[in-house]
Amino acid sequence: MNTFAKIGLLGRTSERKVLESLQQLLDFLNSRSVRVMLQEDVAAALNTQDAQVASIVEIGQNCDLAIVVGGDGSLLGAARVLAQYNVPLLGVNRGRLGFLTDIKPGEIEEKIGAILDGEYLLEQRFLLEASLSRNGKTIGNSEAVNDVVLGSGPSARMIEYELFVEGQFVYSQNSDGVIVSTPTGSTAYALSGGGPIMHPKVDAIVLVPMFPHTLSSRPIVVDANSEIKIVIGANNPTHPQLSCDGQVNFNAAPGDNVVIRKRSHDLKLVHPVEHSYYAACRDKLGWGSRLRSDEDDTTDG
Amino acid sequence: MNTFAKIGLLGRTSERKVLESLQQLLDFLNSRSVRVMLQEDVAAALNTQDAQVASIVEIGQNCDLAIVVGGDGSLLGAARVLAQYNVPLLGVNRGRLGFLTDIKPGEIEEKIGAILDGEYLLEQRFLLEASLSRNGKTIGNSEAVNDVVLGSGPSARMIEYELFVEGQFVYSQNSDGVIVSTPTGSTAYALSGGGPIMHPKVDAIVLVPMFPHTLSSRPIVVDANSEIKIVIGANNPTHPQLSCDGQVNFNAAPGDNVVIRKRSHDLKLVHPVEHSYYAACRDKLGWGSRLRSDEDDTTDG
Amino acid sequence: MNTFAKIGLLGRTSERKVLESLQQLLDFLNSRSVRVMLQEDVAAALNTQDAQVASIVEIGQNCDLAIVVGGDGSLLGAARVLAQYNVPLLGVNRGRLGFLTDIKPGEIEEKIGAILDGEYLLEQRFLLEASLSRNGKTIGNSEAVNDVVLGSGPSARMIEYELFVEGQFVYSQNSDGVIVSTPTGSTAYALSGGGPIMHPKVDAIVLVPMFPHTLSSRPIVVDANSEIKIVIGANNPTHPQLSCDGQVNFNAAPGDNVVIRKRSHDLKLVHPVEHSYYAACRDKLGWGSRLRSDEDDTTDG
Amino acid sequence: MNTFAKIGLLGRTSERKVLESLQQLLDFLNSRSVRVMLQEDVAAALNTQDAQVASIVEIGQNCDLAIVVGGDGSLLGAARVLAQYNVPLLGVNRGRLGFLTDIKPGEIEEKIGAILDGEYLLEQRFLLEASLSRNGKTIGNSEAVNDVVLGSGPSARMIEYELFVEGQFVYSQNSDGVIVSTPTGSTAYALSGGGPIMHPKVDAIVLVPMFPHTLSSRPIVVDANSEIKIVIGANNPTHPQLSCDGQVNFNAAPGDNVVIRKRSHDLKLVHPVEHSYYAACRDKLGWGSRLRSDEDDTTDG
Repeated sequence: MNTFAKIGLLGRTSERKVLESLQQLLDFLNSRSVRVMLQEDVAAALNTQDAQVASIVEIGQNCDLAIVVGGDGSLLGAARVLAQYNVPLLGVNRGRLGFLTDIKPGEIEEKIGAILDGEYLLEQRFLLEASLSRNGKTIGNSEAVNDVVLGSGPSARMIEYELFVEGQFVYSQNSDGVIVSTPTGSTAYALSGGGPIMHPKVDAIVLVPMFPHTLSSRPIVVDANSEIKIVIGANNPTHPQLSCDGQVNFNAAPGDNVVIRKRSHDLKLVHPVEHSYYAACRDKLGWGSRLRSDEDDTTDG
Repeated sequence: MNTFAKIGLLGRTSERKVLESLQQLLDFLNSRSVRVMLQEDVAAALNTQDAQVASIVEIGQNCDLAIVVGGDGSLLGAARVLAQYNVPLLGVNRGRLGFLTDIKPGEIEEKIGAILDGEYLLEQRFLLEASLSRNGKTIGNSEAVNDVVLGSGPSARMIEYELFVEGQFVYSQNSDGVIVSTPTGSTAYALSGGGPIMHPKVDAIVLVPMFPHTLSSRPIVVDANSEIKIVIGANNPTHPQLSCDGQVNFNAAPGDNVVIRKRSHDLKLVHPVEHSYYAACRDKLGWGSRLRSDEDDTTDG
Repeated sequence: MNTFAKIGLLGRTSERKVLESLQQLLDFLNSRSVRVMLQEDVAAALNTQDAQVASIVEIGQNCDLAIVVGGDGSLLGAARVLAQYNVPLLGVNRGRLGFLTDIKPGEIEEKIGAILDGEYLLEQRFLLEASLSRNGKTIGNSEAVNDVVLGSGPSARMIEYELFVEGQFVYSQNSDGVIVSTPTGSTAYALSGGGPIMHPKVDAIVLVPMFPHTLSSRPIVVDANSEIKIVIGANNPTHPQLSCDGQVNFNAAPGDNVVIRKRSHDLKLVHPVEHSYYAACRDKLGWGSRLRSDEDDTTDG
Repeated sequence: MNTFAKIGLLGRTSERKVLESLQQLLDFLNSRSVRVMLQEDVAAALNTQDAQVASIVEIGQNCDLAIVVGGDGSLLGAARVLAQYNVPLLGVNRGRLGFLTDIKPGEIEEKIGAILDGEYLLEQRFLLEASLSRNGKTIGNSEAVNDVVLGSGPSARMIEYELFVEGQFVYSQNSDGVIVSTPTGSTAYALSGGGPIMHPKVDAIVLVPMFPHTLSSRPIVVDANSEIKIVIGANNPTHPQLSCDGQVNFNAAPGDNVVIRKRSHDLKLVHPVEHSYYAACRDKLGWGSRLRSDEDDTTDG
């Protein structure tokens, strides 16, 4: 008996290492008598008859679990689509571990075996929904697992915008843009911009100004249920770019509004039972590495 | 009919301006037929027979509202005691506005009048509770509205400690200390240390390392219901200091444990209806002031 | 007798306020019998016969002083051309003072009068020279008073590059780009990116990474006479943009080299004798504004 | 023929590993017929008759080179004394390399052999000189290789002080203190406080405010020949502490002045020819470690 009876497999098929892991996974799942659906391009690349072929939407509609082979980026792309179908995701990394993909290729049989036996953690992450509107009409709409970024786009010129949270005016600002990040995205781009690390359980969104014109602009953490509205100044000389997870982009114009909200469907992540968020931080952020060893000496000698 | 029938008055009596505002408040509340309790030192300083004299605990037990005249610091001190009695607080500032004290002396009659008429906002802020234990025995305990700080104390030497959140190991670190802050404290000391601004509605705590030995240590935001444990390294050459709101201090020793939790009783703040958190930020943090005006010119000429 | 016998006037003629100041300056200089050269577009906009008309190059070749009316941005543009002719510059600001333009319109007669009487400070600022080369051939070349920025350009994707200083390998990095700034530029874009403020007398260049992929990348200050070489990774998916003072731009390609050096000619700035760099900092950066007033209270009450 | 005919040996004798390296060094130098002077406590700990015994001052007066075994902290202590005698220093580290001590115990014969053969780099580092005065009289004086720190001392309360550079007023500030650092110290405590990394060739000093009350206070880099004066506010409630390299401390009082200047004698460091400052940075600061690997994936998949 497997906890997940029907599993979809996805992955970037242009990489040989990913394909090897996908084949290994397929063989293992077949040996466990799991019913497998392969995303179309995976099926084509593996050239196999051993599984049903499906679109990502069909995987979302029919599977009990989706396994993505690749990096955090591949998982982000799949998650934006699959979250609405309520199917949990599991990430197998090609080499380096990610914050979201925490199974190594060499551990597939052991760790996924344990998960099929019912030993796993289920974690919920919320997504953001960004909509871009012009003159009252929505002209673009997407989801983000990590972050929504309004940036200066093709031009390197600054953007002037007004920020509103829950309808309250926060400030007007000149900057290169603003990063609106979930806790999941807090260890990605937002961190490079000086934002805090936010544990996945925190129900909050962080707004990180990018190269703000004033020294007093700092990251702001707001309740995750707040509606965030960015009004692009009508006199901006340039057309900013709106980007979701760095993967889906829209061209905004002066006077446009961007509204960002928590999405109604959460992303469900499956982890091995030994998963630890802080261990991932220690590993990925090098929290163990030491800086001022000279000061140590000062202390003891 | 007044919304608050019995009101306690507190304030730092060593300042002439504070006494003037206290007298003005007393006269106004008497004119509105509010029953007033004066904290002992206020009564002595005002040398008045027009009100009942009480300790801060009696004010907490008997009043429907406590008004503190002074700065945010005076309000912090009163709040740590009064929060447990469930009595809401209102702050009258002596001059400059604070994040917590948002009524100016000149507005006492107008704004407090409106509040007595029932026009006000009631806001909840959570407090932290810190306990210091040695060999399993609690040796110190206090509350904090803003922050709990473990710092290097008399010596400027670094502290080595281990951090645990909800029982999970986060990291061991060498630094000058760590600031554990509520959203209320996020605009105070934690902000100087590079922490984010957290809106009061966010149910989270931020941990800000002070001059950490490693460049990868960053502010971490965790759920407010998490138990935070700091284990002071047994080999520390020095005795760190534990401080609540910078007002209550304990001397810790190598091997001691500090446990920090959300307190069960919230602080209730009364604000005039026009109160806006972001307006206070704009005012106090100078969000309007401009930096790179030269870049502006670049843009338009 | 005037210290500067022949003065060139420049300014952005699209702004009415700038034109008013230019006319006022022209009248004043005529009253002092200074010989004036007007840049062509200024002459056209003022529609005057009271001065010689000249190109910016002719002003550089013939004048003893050039006065630029506008913001710091206008002065940056003029300075990149005029520095090579050794003619000192003086900036008249249209309203807000700048770091480079420190005479207000209302002070023209008083302050420029004093300067013509010989009471002034002469300050030297060095410029940078950036050249972009591909397959060993220079394909772009410009100067910068503030900064040279290699940024991700049209795409928001990261750039991978290698940094060399004086021929020594520093690091390879993934980031949104890098700002290479003079002390003059240290209060402009570099400051927004977390760079230090560098006094104009410091003979150094600061390299500020933009949103670096690693937390350990920090601003690096190097000797101003160091050759800085940035090698754009051959496998970059995108074409970065090279920008001087945010005003002159070049499109770079994967594999290109950018070499940045101190320029041989300095910019000479004329200031009123009461000019103070730190006073400009206090004024422009709001060094007087206060943050944690609550902590004050803690201290005194 | 040895480049250095007479060599002094110093080190912290309380560590067994240091003693082993000192004995190994002594044997090697004897085998090369170098005349050796042992600092008194080293001679006592090694219990040897194979070398002359001397005080650190005698080593400074008589040796051509001093070798310090230990960490950067041990070298800092020796350097403050020896710099005035113009004797160059070489550091042998006990394990982890430091920024200043770049020979490992296992490399003693190979690398120090090469140095004795004349293959080495000689590098100059400047020191700071700090003097504390009260009512016009000097009450304390010391040198620093890394940094001079004015900190809040026993109390965690803020210090109010005024900063002057070259006699010009910079700002008054409320903060936990200020770090005044050489380029050598820029990778130590100043880096933890947000200061830039300064290459040793840069002739500049960086001033890093510690937890400043205002968000607009940033690290300031000034010319190394500037006199820096800090006037401790007369109304400070507490007595700050002045510290040189974290090793020599003075108790300051409200109203005291601290003057910091470049010292007239440089520290001379001997390095193996393959020494590279940036390689040390890469090694010590972990410049190779990667953060946002997920973004990579975004790019290529």
